[in-house]
Amino acid sequence: MPKTISFARGAPSLDIVDVDGLRAAADAAFQKDPAGLTAYGTAVGYVPLREWIAERHGVPTERVLVTNGSMQADAFLFDALVEPGDTVIVERPTYDRTLLSLRGRGADVRMVELEPDGLDVQALERVLKAGAQPKLAHIIPNFQNPAGYTLSAAKRERLLELAREHDFVVFEDDPYVALRFAGESLPTMVSMDPERVVYASSFSKTVCPGIRVGYLVGPAELIARIQKLAVSAYISPNMVAQGIVNEFARSGGLDNSIDTVKRALQERARTLCECLERELPEARFVPPEGGYFLWVDLPRGSDVNALFKAAAERGVQFVKGSDFVLEGGGSSLRLAYSGVTPEEIEEGVSRLAEAYRETATGVTAEVAH
Amino acid sequence: MPKTISFARGAPSLDIVDVDGLRAAADAAFQKDPAGLTAYGTAVGYVPLREWIAERHGVPTERVLVTNGSMQADAFLFDALVEPGDTVIVERPTYDRTLLSLRGRGADVRMVELEPDGLDVQALERVLKAGAQPKLAHIIPNFQNPAGYTLSAAKRERLLELAREHDFVVFEDDPYVALRFAGESLPTMVSMDPERVVYASSFSKTVCPGIRVGYLVGPAELIARIQKLAVSAYISPNMVAQGIVNEFARSGGLDNSIDTVKRALQERARTLCECLERELPEARFVPPEGGYFLWVDLPRGSDVNALFKAAAERGVQFVKGSDFVLEGGGSSLRLAYSGVTPEEIEEGVSRLAEAYRETATGVTAEVAH
Repeated sequence: MPKTISFARGAPSLDIVDVDGLRAAADAAFQKDPAGLTAYGTAVGYVPLREWIAERHGVPTERVLVTNGSMQADAFLFDALVEPGDTVIVERPTYDRTLLSLRGRGADVRMVELEPDGLDVQALERVLKAGAQPKLAHIIPNFQNPAGYTLSAAKRERLLELAREHDFVVFEDDPYVALRFAGESLPTMVSMDPERVVYASSFSKTVCPGIRVGYLVGPAELIARIQKLAVSAYISPNMVAQGIVNEFARSGGLDNSIDTVKRALQERARTLCECLERELPEARFVPPEGGYFLWVDLPRGSDVNALFKAAAERGVQFVKGSDFVLEGGGSSLRLAYSGVTPEEIEEGVSRLAEAYRETATGVTAEVAH
Repeated sequence: MPKTISFARGAPSLDIVDVDGLRAAADAAFQKDPAGLTAYGTAVGYVPLREWIAERHGVPTERVLVTNGSMQADAFLFDALVEPGDTVIVERPTYDRTLLSLRGRGADVRMVELEPDGLDVQALERVLKAGAQPKLAHIIPNFQNPAGYTLSAAKRERLLELAREHDFVVFEDDPYVALRFAGESLPTMVSMDPERVVYASSFSKTVCPGIRVGYLVGPAELIARIQKLAVSAYISPNMVAQGIVNEFARSGGLDNSIDTVKRALQERARTLCECLERELPEARFVPPEGGYFLWVDLPRGSDVNALFKAAAERGVQFVKGSDFVLEGGGSSLRLAYSGVTPEEIEEGVSRLAEAYRETATGVTAEVAH
């Protein structure tokens, strides 16, 4: 079998991780603050990094809690806010681990359709008018996982209006925000309504995943409650890793790393779109303006399960659309371009198209949506 | 007020942390395995460190899971095994965070008296004969926190017999095992009965707390279940920190660090015992053979709450005995000698004795136990 090409994992390839910069940051961090890196620290995270994050967001430090990756931030937030039976709004499709995490807590998960300009806020309004009383709406506003779509400015405003009107919390899950390579940045919802929104982000996509540093920004009272959960889960998060991130951020390494990553992602996304247009014209997609992911809709009736197997036989991996929804999604797939070079993308799309030809016999040309 | 001297926190002073060794290990780890340190990795932990731990324990790797500190290992284990209402045996006194964690889960916590040679296994037998059906017994076998006592070889065997007879799991919580500075090492219970015991340990006391690396050793089926909990909590633990620990361990830095720590602890423990004998002859204690802690019983009727305040006024901190039990403990205290130099110990005990004289008026000379 040929070398595996993975469009499955939302993770960067090693060539766009600044390993030498991290080595230097580790060395400097241990020299500058040996006590801070080696001691327990506190559950709010490494204090200088917490301050750096607070400054970047223009909020007081007591609104920030730094965690072992943003997945853990999500888990703490759900532990604090979501009881079994509580209604939680999520996007359709959405990040599979969020779905699992909410369902594992016994939440009543309601999916609201995601459009190329973000959540269908009119559909959300209908759900609310029909009587749903959500505790929380989980939204990935920028370059959404898995769809790659971004919530428009107008929809951000409308969503916050609905949240105030129906008294629910907006969970703005924003790990990809720094990875915009086209178009204009939009204000975060947490900056638009700091009392109504809890914001999570991560250094996994801008430094590296193995460093496992994420954070929450939210109302001080909620952050204090989550701090207690963090103490009982692990006393304190990783001071060594957070000290390295702090040094990397303050020395300018982070901004350089973001530039490198964005340039690579832009090229990879463009290559992927071009290859799909050429090799697999049946694929429908919205060219992403940032982030890691491209969502592909195939003609209605396409058998993505069969495509998945046929692609795997050719050494190509992706994630089936059905993994990101409660039901349906059977003619869609997610392609991650973060971990593959342009050459691998060329080769991978050729193989994928070949697999599609093999499995697509008899499918109509109508596009599912 | 004079400079604070803290006998409160179970943490090492910076002078016994090998910061330069950690810097070197970080540098080498990033150079040798950049992909392994920077990628997500998996929920079982950094694979080479998992292998190193498995070798040290002489077990297959599938019995090992590396976590973000051993507190998190405890939390996962309790999540996997303890339902609300389940009976759990703990030592009296025991680590306050374990008590909180179990009570937070709604466990029916039964404390069994701890003697200078470890858990009173006859008292445990009486509890079992009276009908208790514990799911789990939580035991800190070496240099127990807070008492500093060690479970004897004979009692280890008897405890395992009782566990088999009454079908409960022994949770061997062993973060201090490497810090023996007097007497003979005893076999771990997990090596005596690998199917009946789940073992946890940590690098917090041998490398540093801020590195947040701990681990579990247990039956493969249970480890696989806990791996699933770990995936949903944080995807994977800290690869950077675990890569540094792996390099530190394999390069010999860890063994050097343990030697340094043990020598310092031995001197600190000896100084503390000598000072107490001289300055506070009313104090009753067992000289520790390792670890961080000395448990002090004061004469029955002593008011440790008042002592706590009077000591704080003199800049001396300790933890009240009552924090480590469900009720009672009012004439005992825990002194941690891990974070204080011999000079600080001399000064701290003088101040503590002065505080005691101030508060002890009218107390009888009978020792509480």
